[in-house]
Amino acid sequence: MIANTPKPPYYAVVFTSVLSEKNTEYDKMAAKMNLLAKEQDGFLGVETAREGVGITVSYWKNRTAIKKWKAHLAHSEARKKGKEEWYKLFKVRICKVESDYSFEKLNK
Amino acid sequence: MIANTPKPPYYAVVFTSVLSEKNTEYDKMAAKMNLLAKEQDGFLGVETAREGVGITVSYWKNRTAIKKWKAHLAHSEARKKGKEEWYKLFKVRICKVESDYSFEKLNK
Repeated sequence: MIANTPKPPYYAVVFTSVLSEKNTEYDKMAAKMNLLAKEQDGFLGVETAREGVGITVSYWKNRTAIKKWKAHLAHSEARKKGKEEWYKLFKVRICKVESDYSFEKLNK
Repeated sequence: MIANTPKPPYYAVVFTSVLSEKNTEYDKMAAKMNLLAKEQDGFLGVETAREGVGITVSYWKNRTAIKKWKAHLAHSEARKKGKEEWYKLFKVRICKVESDYSFEKLNK
């Protein structure tokens, strides 16, 4: 659920989106793309939640890996379909993760 | 819903969390902290969604603004309470947003 990423630096792609309408076809495509992303070189993990706005943060070894995934044919086709049919708006931010820290409750 | 951030570079804090149990007290505190964050120098916007995992991405002008917000008394107290009572685990990633792009459907 929370991605087990390596020690920084690495990269994050923050993808925030609003759908025209939520539908099962979109959910299927999103799940398929997440599975496909996991097979790509340099993929480190992904976290996703939708509650009105959808936020998907995927983690990558470097910008080259992000670029390759963007150019992947099935991913390009899914994005095209997303723009035509599902997304009302979205924003993509390419980020360098400079530092991180975490917390885990031990007695739970 | 999607933060209207300026031209990069700027900073993002990706806060991913899993709650021990969802409760209204937590929701109130989270809403209060989001309001308070908006008053801070260098705050640029925030996006949040919870669906199993909670993802809150806040945007900041620079690392100094992030540091100041982390040191803010009310925020420190809320984090302490969060660790004691609400969070099962969380991860915080400090990121430099290097580039972004967006899409908006015009006829909707």
